[in-house]
Amino acid sequence: MLLSERLVKKPWAVEPIAFGKRPIIINIDNQKFFTSRQSPFNPAGMPGFDSLTRAVQAQKVLFEHARARNIQIAHTVVAFRKDGKDRGLWKPLDMIRLCTEGSVWAQIDAEIAPHEEDLFFVRKKPSAFFGTPFLELMIAGRYDTLVITGSNTSGCIRATTNESFMHGFHTILPVECIGDLTGEEAHWANLSDVNGRYADVVTLEDVLKYFSSLPKQESL
Amino acid sequence: MLLSERLVKKPWAVEPIAFGKRPIIINIDNQKFFTSRQSPFNPAGMPGFDSLTRAVQAQKVLFEHARARNIQIAHTVVAFRKDGKDRGLWKPLDMIRLCTEGSVWAQIDAEIAPHEEDLFFVRKKPSAFFGTPFLELMIAGRYDTLVITGSNTSGCIRATTNESFMHGFHTILPVECIGDLTGEEAHWANLSDVNGRYADVVTLEDVLKYFSSLPKQESL
Amino acid sequence: MLLSERLVKKPWAVEPIAFGKRPIIINIDNQKFFTSRQSPFNPAGMPGFDSLTRAVQAQKVLFEHARARNIQIAHTVVAFRKDGKDRGLWKPLDMIRLCTEGSVWAQIDAEIAPHEEDLFFVRKKPSAFFGTPFLELMIAGRYDTLVITGSNTSGCIRATTNESFMHGFHTILPVECIGDLTGEEAHWANLSDVNGRYADVVTLEDVLKYFSSLPKQESL
Amino acid sequence: MLLSERLVKKPWAVEPIAFGKRPIIINIDNQKFFTSRQSPFNPAGMPGFDSLTRAVQAQKVLFEHARARNIQIAHTVVAFRKDGKDRGLWKPLDMIRLCTEGSVWAQIDAEIAPHEEDLFFVRKKPSAFFGTPFLELMIAGRYDTLVITGSNTSGCIRATTNESFMHGFHTILPVECIGDLTGEEAHWANLSDVNGRYADVVTLEDVLKYFSSLPKQESL
Repeated sequence: MLLSERLVKKPWAVEPIAFGKRPIIINIDNQKFFTSRQSPFNPAGMPGFDSLTRAVQAQKVLFEHARARNIQIAHTVVAFRKDGKDRGLWKPLDMIRLCTEGSVWAQIDAEIAPHEEDLFFVRKKPSAFFGTPFLELMIAGRYDTLVITGSNTSGCIRATTNESFMHGFHTILPVECIGDLTGEEAHWANLSDVNGRYADVVTLEDVLKYFSSLPKQESL
Repeated sequence: MLLSERLVKKPWAVEPIAFGKRPIIINIDNQKFFTSRQSPFNPAGMPGFDSLTRAVQAQKVLFEHARARNIQIAHTVVAFRKDGKDRGLWKPLDMIRLCTEGSVWAQIDAEIAPHEEDLFFVRKKPSAFFGTPFLELMIAGRYDTLVITGSNTSGCIRATTNESFMHGFHTILPVECIGDLTGEEAHWANLSDVNGRYADVVTLEDVLKYFSSLPKQESL
Repeated sequence: MLLSERLVKKPWAVEPIAFGKRPIIINIDNQKFFTSRQSPFNPAGMPGFDSLTRAVQAQKVLFEHARARNIQIAHTVVAFRKDGKDRGLWKPLDMIRLCTEGSVWAQIDAEIAPHEEDLFFVRKKPSAFFGTPFLELMIAGRYDTLVITGSNTSGCIRATTNESFMHGFHTILPVECIGDLTGEEAHWANLSDVNGRYADVVTLEDVLKYFSSLPKQESL
Repeated sequence: MLLSERLVKKPWAVEPIAFGKRPIIINIDNQKFFTSRQSPFNPAGMPGFDSLTRAVQAQKVLFEHARARNIQIAHTVVAFRKDGKDRGLWKPLDMIRLCTEGSVWAQIDAEIAPHEEDLFFVRKKPSAFFGTPFLELMIAGRYDTLVITGSNTSGCIRATTNESFMHGFHTILPVECIGDLTGEEAHWANLSDVNGRYADVVTLEDVLKYFSSLPKQESL
């Protein structure tokens, strides 16, 4: 089934944003809290669990191509203090309580472990821009294009997509690299919402072609 | 059908955020661009057009109760320069082009026209917090609770809800006061997403009871 | 006296930030509240009043060169609601109260009136980035260099300089184009602070040379 | 000499902001990079070095009173990656290069070491609000008053003061708890600037009296 058939069309015409000149990748929440079958977040089997496993495999392909072009990769995870002072008003408190700083659940999946040259941020809120230095780094590095990967489409991916667009960046979502524990329905509803307004939902192949078209990138 | 039956449950338990002590209302995009049957945004009839008409009626009830308690109301609309310099990377460009500053489409629906004591902001992006002084005003006024009304659930309501939660406010969505031009599916998908994570989706009656429980509020 | 002699050296070495590739100008508070001899803000004669008159003349030279290269100019003024709801916690309340939206004091000095293609923002706080869409516009326009002009060095110029640096932009202060009503001491103390850390304090001639070195700019 | 005599009066009248109802303390950059006589930042003796030593002693008194009332204390330090990717456009690069994450220079002075219940943030920019979750925590904790201590008055203290005011918080600077390596002149120039516009520069005793007037505080 073609990507264009999976995305629910909005009742207005849209023009693609297209890729910019200098991309950076943000990889969101590929931490064991979400990706491990043993996580307390997956006790009875989450309906979309396999979509995260699949997304990690697609990310490996994407990252390999990115590194070959010296395209910057950033990773971010959520993790909280044991005393809960930084929990804010999250509703799924039983879960949030377990995802503490320094715990195994805050660790990035070994399959996709950060390299030394990657950026890394811990955060407390869905958007990768919130309470982190990511925006300043994107501006200082003159990045104009944000490629978003990871999970979950209906939570942190949506929040980061919204903020990337609002800040003024070309926002690109390679669909194979993104998953949602809650299943297909919320995944496609959110991709359709943002594709109709703020971002380009594309295939992994589209992004690989784009990377191939770029010269080797200067470091941040 | 009960509200709780319309909201798709997420596969984790949630605890309600509940109301805080000092509320403010943000009324989003009740401008003729969305609410008028004559708008170029509604040429062939948008599937959720009636949901906006209904939302405006519910807002009138909500606002009347709010004014009786001296609860602050803020309004915001989107509007753009004729030369397009402030359009950013919105995808529905054919539409955005028509919603210019000073045009009839930027006017708030006469049914729900702002009072002199209300706040009012023009903005360029989905979230009411983006590129406006709204956050500073909420902090300076010691508001801890944001009641969100208006349209569209899958666009500006979702964006404002996300940011309200991320900033640390109790975020309340009275479902009758919110509509979505694109129809029921996107409306409930987004309400379900945020109700499972960041906000309390409640009935208009819940908010009226809450307002009744409060003392007359001090002005900003 | 050379500029380098007026700036108090900090006890550490600094490397100039230098100009970037794509500049934008922000012209701050050249409104009659500050620039008019009849303003209530200047009842007994402010010690640095003439520095603002001089700055406006230098801005005219700068802007003429900028327009010839199609370099974007933005203007911003402070102005408040009559009911004071947006005043925040400013201390000089007797003054703030008079600078209302729509009043003569919120008007830009006729000598330096904005052109139709310029950007314009009203704000409530010292920094040009606070409660305005200016940051989003800088990012969307791929600007990397902010040239700051206007007044007052020890207030809104300092605040905007700090935030421009923190967001990651090359921050340039052409000294002839900047003034301070409170006089020379606060002016040079603040220029020295920021020149030692975040920004390049330069001459008008330096900026004109830089502009001359650039190709005609694409519009935002 | 009285505090009021040290502060240069601005040519307009000011009304004090006064204390709010719920304070939090931010302690800025009391890290060995600034406070240690052995730091590379102090090779030939900085003119204001002793002011930091004195400030730490005053902070100890302040913090003891705060802890007795369960008033929240937050600490922040600057520290950078070894590869410099997060340095932004700081001008004193020879210094910035040495203050790396995990190095001794990023450690807080042992005299004033954080307790387990304190908040702690690493940052890359002068303001404590920039690239950190501090704003969200202040909002979520319903704090309305920020007491700022640490160093340096003409750098990070000034930047944090500006942003605290702009966000809408009562901003309080107990003068004995603040120091500046570059000496008295920049210290008093900056205190005078902010006291004339945004913040109340007060004595340590003023803050201790205020703390004594408060009930024991609820935790964040």
